[in-house]
Amino acid sequence: GAGGMSPCAACKLLRRRCAKDCIFAPFFPPDEPQKFAYVHKVFGASNVNKMLQDLPVYQRADAVNSMVYEANSRIRDPVYGCVGAISALQQQVAQLQAQLAVSQAEIVCMRMQHAST
Amino acid sequence: GAGGMSPCAACKLLRRRCAKDCIFAPFFPPDEPQKFAYVHKVFGASNVNKMLQDLPVYQRADAVNSMVYEANSRIRDPVYGCVGAISALQQQVAQLQAQLAVSQAEIVCMRMQHAST
Repeated sequence: GAGGMSPCAACKLLRRRCAKDCIFAPFFPPDEPQKFAYVHKVFGASNVNKMLQDLPVYQRADAVNSMVYEANSRIRDPVYGCVGAISALQQQVAQLQAQLAVSQAEIVCMRMQHAST
Repeated sequence: GAGGMSPCAACKLLRRRCAKDCIFAPFFPPDEPQKFAYVHKVFGASNVNKMLQDLPVYQRADAVNSMVYEANSRIRDPVYGCVGAISALQQQVAQLQAQLAVSQAEIVCMRMQHAST
């Protein structure tokens, strides 16, 4: 492994030498093997590598986190993945907007009644 | 192509013969080449194939739609992908819940004032 350390979770799974400048190592520590297993299964190691290469270093941690989340969602729900969460949230937003409209209409009504008494 | 038709968008991009029982053909018609280009870039053709194989036929169209949506989100936003939409929706839900709580508290107050006059 890099500097005598144990290889990162990605290199361990891919059974390759973990180079000093391994692109995966900062984001996939050996004690969290599931994170890489998820993104490898859903996106493939070479796609993850390519996506990270295409990003500036300071954005890579966020990209890894969102990819792990997405991959985990896809494994839990192979049909809808995290698009299922988006649909559920959109429904919740619509429901809350309707409830808010009712409450605000009620406030307007009460003000009018109050003004007329 | 299958039955003398033009090959599906997947087989066209992968430059392979579109077999009669091509797993991609029902979901990637030749007139929508972008759909397959997106999922191929983000998930890889072999992962898409594997994910479809693992699902019963009646769930495959939904799975393809959610994968196309996810891939398109990742291409537009390489850092957050469709997890960005989830975060934005979660914030919107929290904001609507706060507004609803304020409105409902106002209704309670108005009722109490009304009752005391």
